[in-house]
Amino acid sequence: MLKQFQIPQENVVRVDHNRLRETTKALFVGHGVPEADAEIGADVLVRADLRGVDTHGVSNMLRHYLSDFKNGVINPTPEIHILRETAATANLHSDDGLGVIVAPKAMDLAVEKARNAGVGMVTVAFGRHLGMASYHAMMAMEHDMIGLCVTNAGPRVVPTFGAVPRLGTNPIAVAAPAGTEPPFVFDVATSVVAGNKIVIAQRLGNKLPGGWVAEADGSPIMGDSDPPSVDVAALLPLGSKRETSSHKGFGLGCVVDILSGILSGGGYSMFPGRPFNHHMVAAYRIDAFSDVDDFKAMMDEFLQTLKATPPAPGHDRVIVPGEPEWETEQERLANGIPLHREVIDWFRVTCNEMDILYGLE
Amino acid sequence: MLKQFQIPQENVVRVDHNRLRETTKALFVGHGVPEADAEIGADVLVRADLRGVDTHGVSNMLRHYLSDFKNGVINPTPEIHILRETAATANLHSDDGLGVIVAPKAMDLAVEKARNAGVGMVTVAFGRHLGMASYHAMMAMEHDMIGLCVTNAGPRVVPTFGAVPRLGTNPIAVAAPAGTEPPFVFDVATSVVAGNKIVIAQRLGNKLPGGWVAEADGSPIMGDSDPPSVDVAALLPLGSKRETSSHKGFGLGCVVDILSGILSGGGYSMFPGRPFNHHMVAAYRIDAFSDVDDFKAMMDEFLQTLKATPPAPGHDRVIVPGEPEWETEQERLANGIPLHREVIDWFRVTCNEMDILYGLE
Repeated sequence: MLKQFQIPQENVVRVDHNRLRETTKALFVGHGVPEADAEIGADVLVRADLRGVDTHGVSNMLRHYLSDFKNGVINPTPEIHILRETAATANLHSDDGLGVIVAPKAMDLAVEKARNAGVGMVTVAFGRHLGMASYHAMMAMEHDMIGLCVTNAGPRVVPTFGAVPRLGTNPIAVAAPAGTEPPFVFDVATSVVAGNKIVIAQRLGNKLPGGWVAEADGSPIMGDSDPPSVDVAALLPLGSKRETSSHKGFGLGCVVDILSGILSGGGYSMFPGRPFNHHMVAAYRIDAFSDVDDFKAMMDEFLQTLKATPPAPGHDRVIVPGEPEWETEQERLANGIPLHREVIDWFRVTCNEMDILYGLE
Repeated sequence: MLKQFQIPQENVVRVDHNRLRETTKALFVGHGVPEADAEIGADVLVRADLRGVDTHGVSNMLRHYLSDFKNGVINPTPEIHILRETAATANLHSDDGLGVIVAPKAMDLAVEKARNAGVGMVTVAFGRHLGMASYHAMMAMEHDMIGLCVTNAGPRVVPTFGAVPRLGTNPIAVAAPAGTEPPFVFDVATSVVAGNKIVIAQRLGNKLPGGWVAEADGSPIMGDSDPPSVDVAALLPLGSKRETSSHKGFGLGCVVDILSGILSGGGYSMFPGRPFNHHMVAAYRIDAFSDVDDFKAMMDEFLQTLKATPPAPGHDRVIVPGEPEWETEQERLANGIPLHREVIDWFRVTCNEMDILYGLE
């Protein structure tokens, strides 16, 4: 994790993941979410915290979700229904349901379809934020499938040469199982950094490195800068500027908009009438293509080869996608999830307000 | 196109695309490729030239293909066969066939499967270079489908923090039809630039911008530099360095290795026993998810919204993926394809050597 995102030691409170999950679930239930759905949602959020994806865990996201349940932006009891369906595909209407809860159901359907047809691909229209995209992609691995998840969001990212944000951070997640190695888990925004990273840098009072954000006129800021207000921050697409191929990050963001928002019929990042998020999940059954054991053995070899790469000066080792998150998950399962004292305070106050037993500390 | 890749005017010879296609086809046939296959291969190469993707057109690629036919690395008459198959998927053995010819056949199969199952996904093991990946992705659009194509290649790209190339430039192409707008066509290497761009910069005697290549010890070169010899050039993953998220480009390159090389059973970029390229093509039937006319209308709106973005200082307009290639194609269809005099000379000599009628000029 870049130092910009580390909580200073004196502000850290370690919380047991089971307690955090129970409390989060209770808060969902307290906002009208059925118990089984609340359990799914809490697991997605806490898994993000366990894996060190703090931007998508309870600290950054839960208070937004709860406030959106309250103000009617998120429907706690959506009637999810199928708009179109084929042997390998479906398009679901999310009925304003929270993606954190709906996307796992979409992936269940994709897995079922892949079991029959080799591949399953499910789009979800008219949803809300789905949290850590790799959670949903990782679900496929339990079934010896490769998982994929993309989702679009409101405009935060400037196109290459553009002065105004037009795309969401539109993340892409891909998860593939290995044998003895931890699985390959790729989960990235198509901007240089996810929007929530600006919030965290602001909270911690750290500067942003060059290449992350644009001036108000769209010009890439290539030197260190103070974090802008998160409401006005225009993020740069992966690649930062044209000379280093920001058109590739921009194009990837468009691909996500097309495969989630436009293919589902919901709408692209700039589509009038947001705050929707539209999703796409897919599952590829490994044994539709190859022998599962052979695949996993080759994945092990691939990941080991990458890890064994001689490092460049100033670095200890090459890190493969999903490796730091896997290591963090082992450590946090054992020692608890480090939350900022301010987040703990929010939990205490919110639980008290809602007559929910507060048991984090 | 960046100025680094433009041929100086005094060395340009304009060639009619039909003549170039016929000559290329004749050269394929002269190397033992059956006529129908030669026609496919020539069309893929010349389409790259028409679209301004000169790195993957006749000038950079044809001589390598012909020399590999001669030395037995590419099989001119492969027995392509199905290794595994389900309703929506297949894994093909390419029998050392040239990807430029085999990938269109794989996409035909993906389209057929998508027609029945909603999605078709076909991996190809033990192939060779497939040229401009977007050619194959674009094939799906004629059937009102979204097309996707990825392929892996031998190691040219250093992992983030790594000193030795471990991944190919492993491109990703996605094509989606619009209504009145030119289609969305995304086609990029997962490195900052494709390897062939170094060759072209060398030929034209231009400097490389910072953020493209690494020092011999793996350190990213962030200032302008002379192009290294193409044999030793270590390319940087999209993102250039860790602070600007090169781990995302690195991870995308891994995703391509997994979906093409490992899923097909052929092998990843570093797999011993190359020079294979392994591919994956997919077709998503739009009406499996949404109404086709609605999709195209929303694509038009999406692309128009992006193009109408106010430009950042120093730029005229925002350019959407596929737009410059589409404009170049219209211009080159009318005025001919600009080839470097050196390439024309090669054609003349090669045709003469093989007793093929030379008719480019």
